[in-house]
Amino acid sequence: MSCLLRTARLSARWLFAPTAAPCRRASQFNVPPSAEFVARPVGVCSMLRLPVQTSAEGLDAAFVGVPLDVGTSNRPGARFGPKQIRAESALVRRYNASTGAAPFDSLLVADIGDVNVNLYNLPDSCRRIRESYQKIVASGCVPLTLGGEHTITYPILQAVAEKHGPVGLVHVDAHTDTSDMALGEKIYHGTPFRRCVDEGLLDCSRVVQIGIRGSSYAPDPYKYCWDQGFRVVPAEDCWMKSLVPLMGEVRQQMGDGPVYISFDIDGLDPAYAPGTGTPEIAGLTPMQALEIIRGCKGLNIVGCDLVEVAPIYDVSGNTALLGANLLFEMLCVLPGVKTM
Amino acid sequence: MSCLLRTARLSARWLFAPTAAPCRRASQFNVPPSAEFVARPVGVCSMLRLPVQTSAEGLDAAFVGVPLDVGTSNRPGARFGPKQIRAESALVRRYNASTGAAPFDSLLVADIGDVNVNLYNLPDSCRRIRESYQKIVASGCVPLTLGGEHTITYPILQAVAEKHGPVGLVHVDAHTDTSDMALGEKIYHGTPFRRCVDEGLLDCSRVVQIGIRGSSYAPDPYKYCWDQGFRVVPAEDCWMKSLVPLMGEVRQQMGDGPVYISFDIDGLDPAYAPGTGTPEIAGLTPMQALEIIRGCKGLNIVGCDLVEVAPIYDVSGNTALLGANLLFEMLCVLPGVKTM
Amino acid sequence: MSCLLRTARLSARWLFAPTAAPCRRASQFNVPPSAEFVARPVGVCSMLRLPVQTSAEGLDAAFVGVPLDVGTSNRPGARFGPKQIRAESALVRRYNASTGAAPFDSLLVADIGDVNVNLYNLPDSCRRIRESYQKIVASGCVPLTLGGEHTITYPILQAVAEKHGPVGLVHVDAHTDTSDMALGEKIYHGTPFRRCVDEGLLDCSRVVQIGIRGSSYAPDPYKYCWDQGFRVVPAEDCWMKSLVPLMGEVRQQMGDGPVYISFDIDGLDPAYAPGTGTPEIAGLTPMQALEIIRGCKGLNIVGCDLVEVAPIYDVSGNTALLGANLLFEMLCVLPGVKTM
Amino acid sequence: MSCLLRTARLSARWLFAPTAAPCRRASQFNVPPSAEFVARPVGVCSMLRLPVQTSAEGLDAAFVGVPLDVGTSNRPGARFGPKQIRAESALVRRYNASTGAAPFDSLLVADIGDVNVNLYNLPDSCRRIRESYQKIVASGCVPLTLGGEHTITYPILQAVAEKHGPVGLVHVDAHTDTSDMALGEKIYHGTPFRRCVDEGLLDCSRVVQIGIRGSSYAPDPYKYCWDQGFRVVPAEDCWMKSLVPLMGEVRQQMGDGPVYISFDIDGLDPAYAPGTGTPEIAGLTPMQALEIIRGCKGLNIVGCDLVEVAPIYDVSGNTALLGANLLFEMLCVLPGVKTM
Amino acid sequence: MSCLLRTARLSARWLFAPTAAPCRRASQFNVPPSAEFVARPVGVCSMLRLPVQTSAEGLDAAFVGVPLDVGTSNRPGARFGPKQIRAESALVRRYNASTGAAPFDSLLVADIGDVNVNLYNLPDSCRRIRESYQKIVASGCVPLTLGGEHTITYPILQAVAEKHGPVGLVHVDAHTDTSDMALGEKIYHGTPFRRCVDEGLLDCSRVVQIGIRGSSYAPDPYKYCWDQGFRVVPAEDCWMKSLVPLMGEVRQQMGDGPVYISFDIDGLDPAYAPGTGTPEIAGLTPMQALEIIRGCKGLNIVGCDLVEVAPIYDVSGNTALLGANLLFEMLCVLPGVKTM
Amino acid sequence: MSCLLRTARLSARWLFAPTAAPCRRASQFNVPPSAEFVARPVGVCSMLRLPVQTSAEGLDAAFVGVPLDVGTSNRPGARFGPKQIRAESALVRRYNASTGAAPFDSLLVADIGDVNVNLYNLPDSCRRIRESYQKIVASGCVPLTLGGEHTITYPILQAVAEKHGPVGLVHVDAHTDTSDMALGEKIYHGTPFRRCVDEGLLDCSRVVQIGIRGSSYAPDPYKYCWDQGFRVVPAEDCWMKSLVPLMGEVRQQMGDGPVYISFDIDGLDPAYAPGTGTPEIAGLTPMQALEIIRGCKGLNIVGCDLVEVAPIYDVSGNTALLGANLLFEMLCVLPGVKTM
Repeated sequence: MSCLLRTARLSARWLFAPTAAPCRRASQFNVPPSAEFVARPVGVCSMLRLPVQTSAEGLDAAFVGVPLDVGTSNRPGARFGPKQIRAESALVRRYNASTGAAPFDSLLVADIGDVNVNLYNLPDSCRRIRESYQKIVASGCVPLTLGGEHTITYPILQAVAEKHGPVGLVHVDAHTDTSDMALGEKIYHGTPFRRCVDEGLLDCSRVVQIGIRGSSYAPDPYKYCWDQGFRVVPAEDCWMKSLVPLMGEVRQQMGDGPVYISFDIDGLDPAYAPGTGTPEIAGLTPMQALEIIRGCKGLNIVGCDLVEVAPIYDVSGNTALLGANLLFEMLCVLPGVKTM
Repeated sequence: MSCLLRTARLSARWLFAPTAAPCRRASQFNVPPSAEFVARPVGVCSMLRLPVQTSAEGLDAAFVGVPLDVGTSNRPGARFGPKQIRAESALVRRYNASTGAAPFDSLLVADIGDVNVNLYNLPDSCRRIRESYQKIVASGCVPLTLGGEHTITYPILQAVAEKHGPVGLVHVDAHTDTSDMALGEKIYHGTPFRRCVDEGLLDCSRVVQIGIRGSSYAPDPYKYCWDQGFRVVPAEDCWMKSLVPLMGEVRQQMGDGPVYISFDIDGLDPAYAPGTGTPEIAGLTPMQALEIIRGCKGLNIVGCDLVEVAPIYDVSGNTALLGANLLFEMLCVLPGVKTM
Repeated sequence: MSCLLRTARLSARWLFAPTAAPCRRASQFNVPPSAEFVARPVGVCSMLRLPVQTSAEGLDAAFVGVPLDVGTSNRPGARFGPKQIRAESALVRRYNASTGAAPFDSLLVADIGDVNVNLYNLPDSCRRIRESYQKIVASGCVPLTLGGEHTITYPILQAVAEKHGPVGLVHVDAHTDTSDMALGEKIYHGTPFRRCVDEGLLDCSRVVQIGIRGSSYAPDPYKYCWDQGFRVVPAEDCWMKSLVPLMGEVRQQMGDGPVYISFDIDGLDPAYAPGTGTPEIAGLTPMQALEIIRGCKGLNIVGCDLVEVAPIYDVSGNTALLGANLLFEMLCVLPGVKTM
Repeated sequence: MSCLLRTARLSARWLFAPTAAPCRRASQFNVPPSAEFVARPVGVCSMLRLPVQTSAEGLDAAFVGVPLDVGTSNRPGARFGPKQIRAESALVRRYNASTGAAPFDSLLVADIGDVNVNLYNLPDSCRRIRESYQKIVASGCVPLTLGGEHTITYPILQAVAEKHGPVGLVHVDAHTDTSDMALGEKIYHGTPFRRCVDEGLLDCSRVVQIGIRGSSYAPDPYKYCWDQGFRVVPAEDCWMKSLVPLMGEVRQQMGDGPVYISFDIDGLDPAYAPGTGTPEIAGLTPMQALEIIRGCKGLNIVGCDLVEVAPIYDVSGNTALLGANLLFEMLCVLPGVKTM
Repeated sequence: MSCLLRTARLSARWLFAPTAAPCRRASQFNVPPSAEFVARPVGVCSMLRLPVQTSAEGLDAAFVGVPLDVGTSNRPGARFGPKQIRAESALVRRYNASTGAAPFDSLLVADIGDVNVNLYNLPDSCRRIRESYQKIVASGCVPLTLGGEHTITYPILQAVAEKHGPVGLVHVDAHTDTSDMALGEKIYHGTPFRRCVDEGLLDCSRVVQIGIRGSSYAPDPYKYCWDQGFRVVPAEDCWMKSLVPLMGEVRQQMGDGPVYISFDIDGLDPAYAPGTGTPEIAGLTPMQALEIIRGCKGLNIVGCDLVEVAPIYDVSGNTALLGANLLFEMLCVLPGVKTM
Repeated sequence: MSCLLRTARLSARWLFAPTAAPCRRASQFNVPPSAEFVARPVGVCSMLRLPVQTSAEGLDAAFVGVPLDVGTSNRPGARFGPKQIRAESALVRRYNASTGAAPFDSLLVADIGDVNVNLYNLPDSCRRIRESYQKIVASGCVPLTLGGEHTITYPILQAVAEKHGPVGLVHVDAHTDTSDMALGEKIYHGTPFRRCVDEGLLDCSRVVQIGIRGSSYAPDPYKYCWDQGFRVVPAEDCWMKSLVPLMGEVRQQMGDGPVYISFDIDGLDPAYAPGTGTPEIAGLTPMQALEIIRGCKGLNIVGCDLVEVAPIYDVSGNTALLGANLLFEMLCVLPGVKTM
């Protein structure tokens, strides 16, 4: 029985909610319902309107929300990023028309809800995130994270590196996020990758940071990164250029080892992503974002995140929609995803 | 094992999603998670963050979304009412501090998702809604509906009256919604109660319409209502007054028969509910809304709806928050709800 | 041939624009098209979707826009007030259901467009407004003005008083607008009524200012008004009260002489009218606004304005909708308007 | 007597409304008033503040609004597209400084109002649109349509092809809009061009679709288009490129036959056009939009539309402003438009 | 030399910034510049455009900002409360026209900037606030605080009670803020008054909480407050009533001892104060807020705060304007303020 | 004592306000506080949170606000540009990471507040601006102006040319701003450079206008500019191109003479700068803006402005943030700024 028919049967029952999972019993995979059968505004909004479950057991990949924003240095609001990304994801369909990727014909994917963060204690939130992700990665599932601000990547990488060893990193951002401290604190959204280096979670020769720009506190802003062996690709080097050649080099740099993709939406220009906390002018374009993510196809990706969507600063919802699309594109380059 | 402990255990697991339903196995009831244990931004957003299921079987009451807005005569957007009401409902807690009602100690309640409406065909949407509600009411469950625009009350009442016979109606609104047709159509959000009368779904002597106001197409705007025996309470009669005495009379009028509450958010003044499609100035206050709903305690309520929240016209989210609170208050006056 | 039929015929022709004026040939009056025959979003938006003409000749009353905001001391934007009031007026219908007034069965009314103000020169704008209104009032037509900020009432009253002699004034506002100068200038939105007194345009014993409040530059803020013999009714004297008794006194005060109504939307509380330039907390309610305007029935009204709607500060459009309704209510109390 | 002088005379009369048409009596053409003589906020807002009339008789080209949005699959609001495009069009001036086009020195153009759509019945709306456009094209006038969502192009093309035979199509969009059905319906904004093919309204070898992108329901998203012989130009093929060469090929493809331009604002990237219902990331730029439209100069254009502006999702008004400019550019490439 | 003259001289110099303090040399007091001499948009925006200094030395009262929001349980953003309250305060003038209070003829007042909070560590922020306020109160200056969320009142009261002993409290709020913990933490915006009781900072028999409402986590929501001897005045007891009688009782209750006023903007209905993090429906009105604050005249007030303004949720700026006015009213009831 | 230490000491004192100027006593320069020591939301918001003073005496460069918008032809609001640019400037840091410029290690810079403009009289505002700038430039200080609409550049250049003689001009804008008059007035935001030519303030052979585009009132829109000898670079010539080569030519053109940079934010595409009054589609990018400004390094710059930010049309604040960054970049190319 084809999934379209089964989805049609679902619509024949009229009532729709993400736990329905009508395709799961008859098929090995979950499939986002088509708007040709289930109207877009319909449903308790999970990511891509996929079934919701609370464990990663048995999944190949899982969308996870981390609604934290108390490590933000400027505008808060990323705590509502996961909620809004899920809401806007209703516009994304099951196939990648550009690359031919068919992730839902290849992997078992679900939305496994949110980490129950501690809004009043950043270090404790980090512990909660780390412990949650330890379970997720232990089950063999690849986490695709809906942030939340960038602090969260630190405890996620603690869990990921615990399983996979030090990882390569494709990091898209306006900022290197390698400060040492601010306001006397070691943990906030400006320090995650410094903390990762401190704890040996990164394979530093396999780190690339793309889209970096903006004014700086220090006269030598990239010294720390260079000292670790990171490749820093400033936004200036990307202006008005295809990044396909760069990604060829990045694939070279990453090799066969485990790779994590951390995508800060502020890597993009604020014109495309106004809903974020620390925007910097003259950033990347969505075209370049797609080139970067699609250029990761073939890598041994063990986890991904999309962070820093602060929806209240973009009432159109389009920053969250952009985030939802980029998460879908990350899913499309996971190992094992077939092409049509 | 107390539910607080169980909820605490949930937070110990960190990952939160509405299907988790951690209280259901150990208790007979579902309970909205407390923000003291699960942070408010956390979770795939169901109504009051209750468990989601796709059938009303076994439930005493159920929240159902009907994301329809194509019967709107002015500003559209109520299709996203259910989504936003669910999102904002995270601020509502389990007990009614004012009335002492403890609905989650009394009834088994869940969110059963949305009716899969047909956005391109209003009559077919009505059929889908009617069929969905026939199943809900057949199971003995009381539906609390998150609208959507007011057209939806017509097919809901078809289903409700099929089970309970003609119902009494407590109708809060700026408009009587008893037009006969518009643009050549019999079905849109100006006609639901005319259609209900046509089909004998209302016990016309037990209908009260509260908050009615605004300019009119005809010189005798309430003639139809009066001809049917409805009681019309214009907003002017409510200005700067407690509605407690009115509700005494309404309870009298409703007697023991089945009663349906249909609450159009535009019954309230646009200052309180800017996010709606056909606002009228000089309306009711939230205080009066609470007096009306709380004044229904003791009635034989067989269904409720809260309609016409169009979130995009209120970027603060507060219209949806108001809707979420009013739905909670309706739940609190359902038959069988205990007081603390 | 009834107007409904004629309107229906219009819809049979499908194409709708305010110049169509399909009722004008067959009837003596213009009638706003009913949303039962012409959908609300339809039409080049004139006030109440009435026919547009560029002269007041032959009209009993006319809506006129004065899109000026360069006399604003705080937030600008009232230049777009007329545009937005017209847009939102599509929600207002032809009969006043509360009072029974049937203005479009009584008077010939049209929208006569906007005064072509000089945005770069306030005194020259005043001259242009005065000259435009001289022609309007010369024709015997009563102008109902869509502001624009309050400066405009000064040149309007120059024209009105030239015809009618010094007028009585029902002035609803948060501010008395009787400053002498600011930033060295005699003309801005804080001085119109001082200028009117200077030029003898007001019958000072027949002036009432309602809703006055807010902090003041001087320790004796109402001295000037009292010295002229104005009645000042502070907002404090209106709180939580019906203004029906006050309006009885006002009708007494106004007697049979010509009366002008000048309604600054900031007379209302910012909760109801957020879209305005100099909001003051704790103002009047829309209910009280209706009581004031309806309380003017029977007076010899020779002109009205609704000023200070700055739409960009209220993206819901509801401040403009409020303004449209209040203008409709003013129309309903003009001399000669029949009751159903 | 020069038009500038006549416009000046207009300003001397101060009162401005689009029916004034002061240039029409003295000249053969209508001209948008210059902001040097009539301030931008002034006037009942017609398209480019041109005169409004309700028939296309005698016009070379006409702006027509179709305020329909009930065929929208995601965010509604395009029903207010015509209203907002007209409002923002006050910023557009009479000459095309880039191309030298002088449309108002060449053609008689007016705004002929809106089609009175049926908001509650999509097929009936289509009938109303078709019948309205049959009259417009019968008179020899070229319609330039202000949408409204994309469903409307189907009945427009029924009328256009009835007169001109199957037309070539320059279609700019993120989506091919060639689905067969959704939610059981054949008519909604995802199907117009499929319906056109079904009815033989298109000369399929002369169809080009530019800017196509986004995820898809089917693994072979362009199969239908290719099967018909359409040329599909995905957005990916346009990234960071001038489209001047493409348009050379398109002119070749279109030849001398009648051509219709259908421009969905979501063809552009959401950064430029946030106010639309189904945005897709990584779209075209306004520069490319201008290259496309200007590249149509010389074609036998028989009609144009600009659809899917949903203003409430862009409170700046800039999406509507973009739409107004693109409509002006389409006017500039109509046959018969002279160059300065 | 009168201050008006001196302000005029200032304007003669044209350049305006809050450090100018032109009145300070010639007078003993600071005075907000009048908009009759300095245009409202002019100036680096300090509170009421008063001079800025960084120490409280020599001041009778000082406005202080505490831009903290990381103790927020729901919507963040109060970190920008002080900035926006200062910006909107440009609309407030020097005299209280309603009460005759002339604070700037009585007290030396300045804006002393913000506490440099630690955004990433709530307990450390509390320490920073406490230490800052210890210096402020040590100098004999009365602090008027621009919040920030309600957590901040706890460290402020540590400093205040250290000097004055346990204080009476006039607390306006939707919530009692006496929870014990949340998410495992003792410090967040739900617990400040519990912590104050724990540390003996309050004279519990002199505590009144006004406007309390909303759903609750526990069946006996006010038990803790009652156990301490607090007076709890639910919003229900305030609906549609003047609070003048209540304040008579409150003055009685407070007696001659030191009193602190803590005003959470969410005590007001969301219609008046949409820009806040945890709105509850059916709250107080601004009229009642004024009655409460003005009713404190005569009390021995040793400090005041206005908290929980989250500006991004109210783009009109009106919630911040309300906050600015309420802070001005608090200044007006400080001991030593003369009446005109 | 290093500035970092001194800033740290500042944070040890917790209280932060721009007059604190903690670095001024110990160093010769003012330095923006780092967000690593002073949280971004902290402080009465001066430009870059620099110290505020009211005279330019002793400064090398000064930020000055000119909050004027009454010369705007379309959307007003630029009067709040300086306020919002200052607020958003908290995100900008002290070093230019891209160019290595270290302005705060090179020049003494402060914020000297706003010109006290006359909102009700444009010519008088011009006089006030001129007189203020005469004092600023007399002191040898280079003014960096936060607009305000473009009218202000005319009186600024009066003062600048009085000191430096006719200046070269790098003018970025969508419009040439060389109209002669509008609505009968010689002064508004469409005429500043025409007035400058009239008065001999410009060295016309050293004028370049970049980004010009949009429809025009006249068939030969650039005739006036060309007649004066200006170089006009239309936006079309910039599309999808690096402007580095252009700036080589511009440096050539400017030579060693004094140069003024006037940057109208509407030179950029509305996608990047939605918050402006007269947006034109298809404009420059922020990358190109940086290329232009950075390309001015080496020129003899005697003044700069950034005009036409109208914040209310961009609630994200990002247009103002863009403006703040561009002003920082202008500071970085002033003569005497050292590179790291």
